[in-house]
Amino acid sequence: MTGQDAGRPALTHDIRITDTTLRDGSHAMSHLFTETQVRDTVRALDGAGVEWIEVSHGDGVGGSSFNYGFSGTDEMRLIAAAREEARQARIAVLLVPGIGTVDDVKEAHAAGAEMVRVATHCTEADVSPQHFGAARELGMETVGFLMMAHRTNPDDLAKQARIMIDAGCQTVYVTDSAGALLMHEATARFQALVAEAGEDAWVGYHGHQNLSLGVANSVLAHEAGVRYIDGSLCALGAGAGNSPTEVLAAVFDRLGVDTGLNPGALLDAAEEVVRPYLPRWPKMNRNAVVQGWAGVYSSFLLHAERAGERYKVPPHEILRRCGELGYVGGQEDMIIDVALQLAAERDQGS
Amino acid sequence: MTGQDAGRPALTHDIRITDTTLRDGSHAMSHLFTETQVRDTVRALDGAGVEWIEVSHGDGVGGSSFNYGFSGTDEMRLIAAAREEARQARIAVLLVPGIGTVDDVKEAHAAGAEMVRVATHCTEADVSPQHFGAARELGMETVGFLMMAHRTNPDDLAKQARIMIDAGCQTVYVTDSAGALLMHEATARFQALVAEAGEDAWVGYHGHQNLSLGVANSVLAHEAGVRYIDGSLCALGAGAGNSPTEVLAAVFDRLGVDTGLNPGALLDAAEEVVRPYLPRWPKMNRNAVVQGWAGVYSSFLLHAERAGERYKVPPHEILRRCGELGYVGGQEDMIIDVALQLAAERDQGS
Repeated sequence: MTGQDAGRPALTHDIRITDTTLRDGSHAMSHLFTETQVRDTVRALDGAGVEWIEVSHGDGVGGSSFNYGFSGTDEMRLIAAAREEARQARIAVLLVPGIGTVDDVKEAHAAGAEMVRVATHCTEADVSPQHFGAARELGMETVGFLMMAHRTNPDDLAKQARIMIDAGCQTVYVTDSAGALLMHEATARFQALVAEAGEDAWVGYHGHQNLSLGVANSVLAHEAGVRYIDGSLCALGAGAGNSPTEVLAAVFDRLGVDTGLNPGALLDAAEEVVRPYLPRWPKMNRNAVVQGWAGVYSSFLLHAERAGERYKVPPHEILRRCGELGYVGGQEDMIIDVALQLAAERDQGS
Repeated sequence: MTGQDAGRPALTHDIRITDTTLRDGSHAMSHLFTETQVRDTVRALDGAGVEWIEVSHGDGVGGSSFNYGFSGTDEMRLIAAAREEARQARIAVLLVPGIGTVDDVKEAHAAGAEMVRVATHCTEADVSPQHFGAARELGMETVGFLMMAHRTNPDDLAKQARIMIDAGCQTVYVTDSAGALLMHEATARFQALVAEAGEDAWVGYHGHQNLSLGVANSVLAHEAGVRYIDGSLCALGAGAGNSPTEVLAAVFDRLGVDTGLNPGALLDAAEEVVRPYLPRWPKMNRNAVVQGWAGVYSSFLLHAERAGERYKVPPHEILRRCGELGYVGGQEDMIIDVALQLAAERDQGS
């Protein structure tokens, strides 16, 4: 299947927002979302005009495991609940090849998901084609996530995007998993992907707030021709969280950019629906800022905090070392090794 | 005294950071900073390379009052303590004409302050000249704050800047008191002031995070030729807080812009010195985002929360009404009137 066959979906607004509170936020919730929380959040997002709502384990369908953390509630049940509550909005799931499988996508589709977002490291798009093919055969909309997009240059990122597009991906994302992209770096990647995609696919942007640039980069994304943008209520997501959906709504409203969102309703949703169940408000504390500064996968945050507590080493030093070693998503098991190594260095030094 | 006589101070780095944790943060602390907190914070900032540290009541010297909130510790004592702790850094104070007086500045100078930042509404620079004159006679460095800079256009803002410069102001700030300036709006103001100031004065930027754009606007400020930039540790400041100094340090480090700051030391200072005394981490909750969205003076936040509690009306509705009515700094007493009015409307409606 080629990009031409797949075709870009028709858009209703200048910007199409996908809210990922119930997926990226799953990291910050230690994957313990309840069905009630999911229903309440979907109802609020749906009523505020959000078009796509992503629901799954933080590491995507099939992520519930010893390595990534077990889900408190089976994600297929959460997807079905979300589908039931949504009147206008549609439900998306994340798939990280190697963590989830085509069977997981089929199950999610049966539960009501209509979009799959296939996420690979920014240099490994070649593990994605079979998943786009399978999703398109199911009639699902397809998105490709090029994660840790700061780790390759704009031209190479565009080549990876082309692999996804040619495999049936309808929207390819600059995914700033580490919240590390400075504004000019983000813009260069947006421009490269928009040029490469042409009329074959849309371009998207998924940001994290580790350097406080998620919202700013979303504005630059729009200026560069990006049409899909991600956010989370209360920024609920890995690291310092995602670009807050309610802030994106307010900023695009002030810019006169049509998103179809109701900013007041989203501010209410953040404050009255999500805030009460937050274990903690995502913030730019030392650990999260180090992730942006050193370019570390945002969902390493809680893993590093747990390892730091167990082995009595500062989590920000674990994260910084992970950045130096160039670890990427899927290498969560190395975090323990880093903690042990730092503990050994400390003991030798003392 | 003219701008030419005053002269721009020589700069040591590309960007000169003024940390305002101990002044703008005073709002978030309900003006209850202790001498120990001030000493610890100054020591940490000084060690991390911050050149100027602002210390005073949130509303400037003389702000301790029924209307603005009483200081827990006399601010002159805090200024003297700060001066005592600082090895490299120098101490600045804020002066809002009408709240503070020339006598307050003299007292602050005697206590060790070497810079005064004279703050007026963005259209009222004409109340500032006598204060610049008095400060220059004391040998103090002078900064002018044009507050609520979103409320006038770039050309008119530049004309106000010229009034300050001609009165002896050495650095004139685009002060985004409401955290309302979108990126293109901020850039237009930076460019207008840099062009107007020429070699007569430097230009500065003071941001708030109400729309999550303080750090991004600081990057744009640097690109436009702005040389003075404000931050606060943990973003401690009015509204959703200021641009976090530790994040500015990390971002400018990544950009290769010389600030003289040690990002790691600032991350430690935020986490280990300021975080333990935070009453709450400043955040983009509904009330703060509404301030950016509707253009409301950031330090109205706690006033509106207290009025909302007393009169049982939602603080974000109070703030939104304040924005519609165009209230500016100094009209804190009107917040109660707005709350009473909203309560009356509610009772009539029920």
